[in-house]
Amino acid sequence: MIASKGYAAQTPQSDLAAWTFERREVGAHDVQINIQFCGVCHSDLHQIKNDWFPGIFPMVPGHEIVGTIVKIGSDVKKFKNGDLAGVGCLVDSCRTCDNCKEGLEQYCSNHSVGTYNSKGKDGLPTYGGYSNNIVVHEDFALHLSDKLSLAATAPLLCAGITTYSPLRFWKVGKGHKLAILGLGGLGHMGVKFGVAFGAEVTVLSTSPSKEKEAKALGAHNFVVTSDLAQVAAVKGSFDFILDTVSAKHDINLYLSLLRTNGIHICVGAPSEPHSISAFSLLGGRKSVAGSGIGGLPETQEMLDFCAKHNIVSDIELINIKDIHQSYERMLKGDVRYRFVIDMATL
Amino acid sequence: MIASKGYAAQTPQSDLAAWTFERREVGAHDVQINIQFCGVCHSDLHQIKNDWFPGIFPMVPGHEIVGTIVKIGSDVKKFKNGDLAGVGCLVDSCRTCDNCKEGLEQYCSNHSVGTYNSKGKDGLPTYGGYSNNIVVHEDFALHLSDKLSLAATAPLLCAGITTYSPLRFWKVGKGHKLAILGLGGLGHMGVKFGVAFGAEVTVLSTSPSKEKEAKALGAHNFVVTSDLAQVAAVKGSFDFILDTVSAKHDINLYLSLLRTNGIHICVGAPSEPHSISAFSLLGGRKSVAGSGIGGLPETQEMLDFCAKHNIVSDIELINIKDIHQSYERMLKGDVRYRFVIDMATL
Repeated sequence: MIASKGYAAQTPQSDLAAWTFERREVGAHDVQINIQFCGVCHSDLHQIKNDWFPGIFPMVPGHEIVGTIVKIGSDVKKFKNGDLAGVGCLVDSCRTCDNCKEGLEQYCSNHSVGTYNSKGKDGLPTYGGYSNNIVVHEDFALHLSDKLSLAATAPLLCAGITTYSPLRFWKVGKGHKLAILGLGGLGHMGVKFGVAFGAEVTVLSTSPSKEKEAKALGAHNFVVTSDLAQVAAVKGSFDFILDTVSAKHDINLYLSLLRTNGIHICVGAPSEPHSISAFSLLGGRKSVAGSGIGGLPETQEMLDFCAKHNIVSDIELINIKDIHQSYERMLKGDVRYRFVIDMATL
Repeated sequence: MIASKGYAAQTPQSDLAAWTFERREVGAHDVQINIQFCGVCHSDLHQIKNDWFPGIFPMVPGHEIVGTIVKIGSDVKKFKNGDLAGVGCLVDSCRTCDNCKEGLEQYCSNHSVGTYNSKGKDGLPTYGGYSNNIVVHEDFALHLSDKLSLAATAPLLCAGITTYSPLRFWKVGKGHKLAILGLGGLGHMGVKFGVAFGAEVTVLSTSPSKEKEAKALGAHNFVVTSDLAQVAAVKGSFDFILDTVSAKHDINLYLSLLRTNGIHICVGAPSEPHSISAFSLLGGRKSVAGSGIGGLPETQEMLDFCAKHNIVSDIELINIKDIHQSYERMLKGDVRYRFVIDMATL
């Protein structure tokens, strides 16, 4: 076994704290990555607090993992020692169901294995990226470009693919009016991808103060959703709304901003269900859709796209000892736009 | 003005009763139809009871209207006296917005004019088909085949187009597994169209007794949704669910029956909003969509399709004096599958 250290929550009530644990030995198809940076996702906090479902404790969160390969198994083909590599939200899946065969491992019919708060095929709990290393099957490790900032690449593994995938699936691009709801870790990536794909991008936000930042990210328009006149001016105008908000919010308002056949795509997951009037959908053949992260082939495609178009996340690098303060700031939306842990501080 | 008689609700608290009123004179582009049959839609009851929004009273319901042209305006091109003609849910729209120009008058950006419980461009209330005649702009009257039962054609004007339109929009056909939720006026038309379009059709119902009827309508499979084993057997299997239920129901259960990328299409409109978990959508890139009736060109296309494929509604012809008893039976699902009023009984 490989001695590992990280930050773990021992129970849903406890703070994260230093913890030592073991990773499995590097198998024939495995790679061992020394983790250099790990992004801080809102879902880390949801999961250590049991907001969504009863978790597996002790829990080492983190699924925006980047680092360097330090050991490879005898049958590994994709990587060599010294390569940069990333790991996102998944570390395994059944690989035999229709979804897996189509590269949609995130929708594996037999339950994919999450990077943390999950159990591997060996029945052992998985531990995430708030740690110094990870051992993963090479099929679930991703190639990273050495031309991009490695720290700023980390959030692409979750925030990036989560916004890239639905925009690709629904073919959002030139001629489309795309609204991004929520300008946080996911939202700011949604703006960057929407602009890169050629859509006219509008940021919808409750904070007038974010207008300047939204435009700096490339957004063409900005609407303060608490301003009734501004909202009225964009009624029935968007082809797509990418909803990145994971706190409770009223979707019916946003459905009224969609044009006929418009699609409201949820990538955030509030703990409480959405309340949606049938009339909001019927009156314009509208849809509320959901999209979860992305499969491995598409995640690699996204990383390659980012390398080609020089797209990374806007980040604040933090010391792992400041993780709780960072969670508090994240909850207040006080981060531009993703905290990333410098694992050298572990 | 044209003296007319019909059945009206004077207030949301009162029963329907005989009432005399006036229609506008036949204008240059209008046709006058002597109504022979009018279908009874669940939304008639919703509207006379103010379930959805405060209505305009006295209210003459009915928007599944068929009959014979008895008078045409000087500029009418589409019809001549003696022609069969139908009127559905709409009698006017702005005709200038993008939706109207695309033949999506039901989504008119400037508010279409409903056949009843609405106000025309002249500011006067519209009165529906529980009456002996109607005057309508020729653009909102539809040609009917004389090869089909006229009484059984009436429900096509709402129940027919409401199910035909979404199946066409989402290109449901060969190779698709389509589930129909609710086997009533809309549902039984959904079965007929789904089968005609080549899909494998499954009826989802709480009533085991409906299996034989569902198969007689052409459904390939039948699932009793209160039987957990039957439900488990179809988990993750449908490409589309056409949800025709207008009473409160839990959509999350049905979302679990959709395969990846599946779409749950609501055409019924419960008074209360749906409660939908984001996880039900994210875990398989699923959508909940809505679709409202259909535009005039598509309604004519549907009627022509029905004439070609010999499709009509299964109906029970009633005396208008039995309308309240019919509403009670409709609420209990005790109708195979649509009541149609014989207007000769008025």
